[in-house]
Amino acid sequence: MVNYNQGLDATFQALADPTRRAIVSALARGQASVTELARPHRMSLPAVMKHLKVLERAGLVTQRKSGRTRRCRLSARPLKKAEAWIFQYRAFWETQFDALDRYLAQAPTEDAKWPKNSSPQKPR
Amino acid sequence: MVNYNQGLDATFQALADPTRRAIVSALARGQASVTELARPHRMSLPAVMKHLKVLERAGLVTQRKSGRTRRCRLSARPLKKAEAWIFQYRAFWETQFDALDRYLAQAPTEDAKWPKNSSPQKPR
Repeated sequence: MVNYNQGLDATFQALADPTRRAIVSALARGQASVTELARPHRMSLPAVMKHLKVLERAGLVTQRKSGRTRRCRLSARPLKKAEAWIFQYRAFWETQFDALDRYLAQAPTEDAKWPKNSSPQKPR
Repeated sequence: MVNYNQGLDATFQALADPTRRAIVSALARGQASVTELARPHRMSLPAVMKHLKVLERAGLVTQRKSGRTRRCRLSARPLKKAEAWIFQYRAFWETQFDALDRYLAQAPTEDAKWPKNSSPQKPR
């Protein structure tokens, strides 16, 4: 349970940053070198490597040396676990959205409250 | 896009802690007071309130005063958004798990590599 929790901590922490989420998106399309990953971001290579370290610690990214470059690869397992954790509350959010839909369906519409073409009544 | 990203940052950040995830779990079962939420955790009330603040900032929890107590309520929307973000990579992880399954199905089993009942050969 401690490991499961630590895993989720690290995954959610890693995903709590737009650059790291963009790296996840890029790697979902295929493996890439650190330089390729850094290209779309206005960021120094060391800054991108720092983000990659966070993703690696969470097990989301693995790096492999290929000649003089490093290829990065996305690992599916932590993503799937994080999604499964949130997904267990699907019944909850569906109930909450259904209740909102029912409320909106029952509430009087603006049209009903303020009939069209009604001119302001003059005081008698 | 900035707001969408900031929302996801805050949600994933809020979920990156086991106490906060436990609070989300508890509130998915129904509204609760701060004291009720604090009970299962070996934590001071102010420490729990700090976690609640993080959840509130992410829009995951709303608090409402009811007499002398505060009732906390879980909000579905940020959970659903975070799940949707991860879920877009479902095709990726299914491909990766399928590839692993195919590899394991093709790989020779331990039994095939090391036939049972084989006795070590004596040197001639």
